[in-house]
Amino acid sequence: MNINALDRLTALLSKLPGVGKKSAGRMVYHILDGDPGYAQTLAAELAGLHQAILRCGICGGFTETDPCPICSDTSRDQSVICVVERAQDIRIIEESREFRGLFHVLGGLIAPLEGIGPGSLSIGRLLGRLKTGKVRELILALNPTIEGDTTALYLQKLLKDIKTSDNLNIEITRLASGLPVGGDLEYTDRLTLSRSFRSRVRF
Amino acid sequence: MNINALDRLTALLSKLPGVGKKSAGRMVYHILDGDPGYAQTLAAELAGLHQAILRCGICGGFTETDPCPICSDTSRDQSVICVVERAQDIRIIEESREFRGLFHVLGGLIAPLEGIGPGSLSIGRLLGRLKTGKVRELILALNPTIEGDTTALYLQKLLKDIKTSDNLNIEITRLASGLPVGGDLEYTDRLTLSRSFRSRVRF
Repeated sequence: MNINALDRLTALLSKLPGVGKKSAGRMVYHILDGDPGYAQTLAAELAGLHQAILRCGICGGFTETDPCPICSDTSRDQSVICVVERAQDIRIIEESREFRGLFHVLGGLIAPLEGIGPGSLSIGRLLGRLKTGKVRELILALNPTIEGDTTALYLQKLLKDIKTSDNLNIEITRLASGLPVGGDLEYTDRLTLSRSFRSRVRF
Repeated sequence: MNINALDRLTALLSKLPGVGKKSAGRMVYHILDGDPGYAQTLAAELAGLHQAILRCGICGGFTETDPCPICSDTSRDQSVICVVERAQDIRIIEESREFRGLFHVLGGLIAPLEGIGPGSLSIGRLLGRLKTGKVRELILALNPTIEGDTTALYLQKLLKDIKTSDNLNIEITRLASGLPVGGDLEYTDRLTLSRSFRSRVRF
């Protein structure tokens, strides 16, 4: 079978996360069977995506305006910064509606085996934000993995140093680790269970 | 959160089959984090898709040239036509490399409850192809569903009529129904099991 427009589009779509060759094929036929206007609109949005979306100069999040709507929102709590690994983590936290402070995107986690050291992350800019003296709490919302823990420990040590040198009073916290809501003890791994024991709360 | 380019693209992608809001979001961030060239190529393929892909004037399959490569291939067996519901079924059968004849796309199945009668299907064109006298066998590769069975019965009756009126000698066959290869008796539904009994073959 010769390589035609269907094969090329199928190959491109199967590069998306969670999309195999079969589901990519199903998507192509769905688009082909459907309204050509949908394909045109989707094409236009894709073509304009990288130009429309910037990185916020303050927090590093994805935005159409710089600074981003969150950093520009003076009604948000300017004394708390939530540190996340990736820009997309901001949306997940925003959707929980639990946090009303500011964000800071690290752009990765320390992973020596992959050659990612503190220098690859946006830590210098974070320290700059802390040194303004407005921030009282730094919440580390990093994944509870080895890389997340390493990065959290590194940031804790760094903060201890600048707290002394710059005479700042910043509390550093981490998201609680434990059983997921609706989860089952039987299906919880040993490490999560041991963490949820150590972080147990009074009833 | 205001509607920006990310939200618009997420909403568009979540209209694809098998893509929910969460996986659409993951795709958008994957595209945004990746090479802008990928987004541009994908956009260009999508924008050109409906113009690049035609329907073959003979079989009704998707193609970039009319007639399609299969209908134009004189090395294929011109005496057998495999009747399928949708154009994308051709690819599935081609990939099995079991069949070397021609195809005919009906464009649907008879479904009175949904208002789809024989008139909505490309049956007239099929009869035209049969009346050339070259065709010796018509293989019905329709889904083993009520609609597939209804359509198969309708075609069988129609063929019986033209066999008499046009003095044609065409055999009509259907794909075998039975246990899927690698399947398990225990997980086979009653109807499939009863069909596989009735169509049992000598060992």
